[in-house]
Amino acid sequence: MAAATLSAGSVGSVETQHLDLPAPLPLDCGRELYPVRVAYETYGTLSPQRDNVILVCHALSGDAHAAGFAKTPPAASTRDGFGAEGRDRPADKGLGWWDGMIGPGKAFDTDRYFVVATNLIGGCRGTTGPSSTDPATGRPYGSDFPVLTVADMVRCQRAFLDVLGIERLAAVAGGSLGGMQALEWAVRYPDQVDAIVVIASTHALHPQGVAWNAIARESIMRDPAWQDGHYYGTGRAPEAGMGVARMLGHITYLSAPALTDRFGRRLQFADNIRYTFRDPEFEVESYLQHQAASFVRRFDANTYLYLSRALTYFDLAREHGAGSLRRALAGVSARTLLIAFSSDWLYPPAASAEIEEALHSLGKPVEFHLIEAPYGHDSFLLEEAQQTPIVRRFLAEQCAGERRRATRNP
Amino acid sequence: MAAATLSAGSVGSVETQHLDLPAPLPLDCGRELYPVRVAYETYGTLSPQRDNVILVCHALSGDAHAAGFAKTPPAASTRDGFGAEGRDRPADKGLGWWDGMIGPGKAFDTDRYFVVATNLIGGCRGTTGPSSTDPATGRPYGSDFPVLTVADMVRCQRAFLDVLGIERLAAVAGGSLGGMQALEWAVRYPDQVDAIVVIASTHALHPQGVAWNAIARESIMRDPAWQDGHYYGTGRAPEAGMGVARMLGHITYLSAPALTDRFGRRLQFADNIRYTFRDPEFEVESYLQHQAASFVRRFDANTYLYLSRALTYFDLAREHGAGSLRRALAGVSARTLLIAFSSDWLYPPAASAEIEEALHSLGKPVEFHLIEAPYGHDSFLLEEAQQTPIVRRFLAEQCAGERRRATRNP
Repeated sequence: MAAATLSAGSVGSVETQHLDLPAPLPLDCGRELYPVRVAYETYGTLSPQRDNVILVCHALSGDAHAAGFAKTPPAASTRDGFGAEGRDRPADKGLGWWDGMIGPGKAFDTDRYFVVATNLIGGCRGTTGPSSTDPATGRPYGSDFPVLTVADMVRCQRAFLDVLGIERLAAVAGGSLGGMQALEWAVRYPDQVDAIVVIASTHALHPQGVAWNAIARESIMRDPAWQDGHYYGTGRAPEAGMGVARMLGHITYLSAPALTDRFGRRLQFADNIRYTFRDPEFEVESYLQHQAASFVRRFDANTYLYLSRALTYFDLAREHGAGSLRRALAGVSARTLLIAFSSDWLYPPAASAEIEEALHSLGKPVEFHLIEAPYGHDSFLLEEAQQTPIVRRFLAEQCAGERRRATRNP
Repeated sequence: MAAATLSAGSVGSVETQHLDLPAPLPLDCGRELYPVRVAYETYGTLSPQRDNVILVCHALSGDAHAAGFAKTPPAASTRDGFGAEGRDRPADKGLGWWDGMIGPGKAFDTDRYFVVATNLIGGCRGTTGPSSTDPATGRPYGSDFPVLTVADMVRCQRAFLDVLGIERLAAVAGGSLGGMQALEWAVRYPDQVDAIVVIASTHALHPQGVAWNAIARESIMRDPAWQDGHYYGTGRAPEAGMGVARMLGHITYLSAPALTDRFGRRLQFADNIRYTFRDPEFEVESYLQHQAASFVRRFDANTYLYLSRALTYFDLAREHGAGSLRRALAGVSARTLLIAFSSDWLYPPAASAEIEEALHSLGKPVEFHLIEAPYGHDSFLLEEAQQTPIVRRFLAEQCAGERRRATRNP
C-alpha cells in the first residue's frame, strides 16, 4: 500500500463534459424535470465488460470536477474548508475536490477503475438546477425548481449512467451528502451496485445538523437580494446571506480543537485590539470572511437551499423502512464500507455504527473504520493517507460474506 | 439544604429602577461616556453594615430583571433557551432570568443577602447603550457608541455601586458573560470582593466560540436594515439578521443530545414531508423560528453587537497577565467558586479547570464543580437543583484558605 501511495499520480488535465438525459426525470415530489443536462467528468478507462465503474458522489458544495486539474479553473477553489485553505499546494486553484483520493495508485485507482463524477441535479456547475431555464417560462426556474431529495439525485445518476451504457457499478462512493447517495444507491438499486463506500455520512442527519442547515437556509432566504428565489438577471444575488451560511457551515465542518490549533486567539493585528466590530480582530474572524467571499463567487444560493434541504430530508428508516433502519437495509446486497472520523461532530461516528449494526444483524457484508483525525467533518477531504489503504483493500477484495471490524468504539 | 430548597420562594413583584451616574465613565477604548443611566433591581435587604451585597451579572441577552415577577412584563420572555421554552411555568412571561437561583431560601438567598442586578452598559433594557441619545448629536448613538469591554461593564457596575454607597461585595456572581464580569471584578478590585461565583464561563473564549459570535454579528451587519448601525427611527431594524444570529446562538447554547431528546427528527406535520424549504418541516426548525421571532421583539441588534464583541475580547491573560493566566490572577483575594457543565461545548469545563489550576498554584482559595447536566451551556439557567446546594454552602463559609475539590475531571 505504501508503495502504491507513494507512486500515486494525477489524472492530469480534465474538462467537465455535458450530456442531456433522453427522457423526463421523475421526482419524489411528484413533478418531472425535462430537459435535464448532466455535467460530468470521467477518469481512467472503461473496461470492455463495463464492470469497473466507480461513481463518486459529491457533497453540498462540490461539483463534477472531482480529480485532476481543470482546463478552465473556476474563479475560486472548489475544495472545501481546510481542503481549500489548509495545505500548501501551489496549483490548488483548479484541483478537483477529491483529487487526493482519485488517480493512478490512489484510493480510487484510475489504473484499474473508470471513475465517474457528476454534478448533482439541482446543482449550479453544469447540471440542471434552479439557475437553469424553465421551459415553461423561458426564464430561470429560481425557487420554482422542484424541491429535491437524495433519491432524486440518485435517480438522475441512474438515468445518466443509462445513457453511458453502464448498468452495474463496481462501487458508489462519497462523503457527507455523497455518502447518503451511496446508501440510497444500495437500497434503491440493490442488483446494480457491488459495493458502497460511505464516508463521514449518516442514514439520517441528527437534529442539531438539521438545525444548522435550517439556519444557513434562513440566512439566504432572509437576504432581501434573494427576492423569493428569483434573483437571476436582477443584478443582485443573496451573497450577504450565503456568506453567513458558508461561515456557519464552515465552522460545523471543522472541529473546535482544529480551530484552536490553527488560529488560537491570535489577533489579526499583532499589536492589540482595535475596538471595532466591523472589521476582523481575530485571525479566525478574518479566515471566515475569506471563506465567505470565495464561496459566493463560485456557488449559487438557490442550489445551496435545494441541496441543504435534500440532505436534511434524507432518512433511510423513514423512507424505506417504515421507521426501521434494519428494515430499510434489508434488501441491500452491496458490500458496505463505512468510514467515520473521531472529531466529526456534524456527522458523528455513531450513525455509521448504527448502519454497521443494522447490516450486520441482517448478515450483510459490512466493515466500519473509525479514523482518529483532528479536522472534524472536513477530514473526509483531508485524511487521504489514512483512508487510502482502507479503501484500496476494500475495493480489491472479492465480494465476501465475512465482516471486518477495525477500530470500532464510536 | 434540602429543607432550604424546599422552602424556596419568590422575591415577588418587582420593578426595574434607574439611576444616573454622577460622573463620566472612562472606557478601555479611551473614550468617556456621559451621561450614563443604569437600570437595576434589588432583592432582599441591605444590612446596616452594608456587608451582605451580592452583585449578579447577566449574560449576552439578559437584563436587570434577574428575579421575581416584573410589574410590567416585557413583550416576550427574557429567559433564554430552554430556560424560556423548556419548562412548564405558567407565569414564565414576567419571570426574572435567574429566578430559580435568587430568592428566599434559594442559592442567592434574599433572606440573608441583598442581591443587586444591573443591566450592562451597552444594554438595551434601561442602561445607556447604542439606542440611547448621544448628547453630541441629539440622536441615538447607533454604531457611534464606543466599543466596550468586560472591564468597562465592571467599571460601570463599580460606579453604580458607589452611588448606592456600597463599597464591598460579599460576592459577584454570573454565568457565561456574567462569569467573565465576576472574574474581572476579582482581578480589577481585589480588595472589594470577598467571593466570586463563576458559572459556565471562561477566562478567554476559545476560537470556535469567537467564530460563532463573529458569524452572528455578520448576520446582523449584513442585513441592509442595519444601515451601518443607524436604524433607530427609520422604521426598519435588522430583525432578519438578528433572528438568524439568535438561531445560531441558541443552538450553541444547547447540546446536540438535548436537541435529539427534545425534538428528534420529528416532522412538523405528522403525515409526511411537504417538499418545501420556505417553511419548517421538522419540529426543531419550527422551534428555531419561534426563538428568533420572540427574541427580535425584545432585543436590540446593536446591543447584541457590542456585547458579543466584548465577550470575545475578554482575555484575562492578555489583559492582565502579559499572556499568563497565572500572572493575571496573582492579585486575586476573593474566594472563587467555579461551576461548569459536562455538556457545555460553548464554554467547555476545561477553561474552568485552567482557572482552578492557576488559582491553586497561587495558593488562592478556589473550588471547581463539574456538574453532569445534559442541556449544554443553558444549564446555568436550568440546573438550579444541582447548583443551589453548592452555591449556598460556598457563600455560607467564612473565607477559608483551604481548597475544595468536587467532581473534577473535565
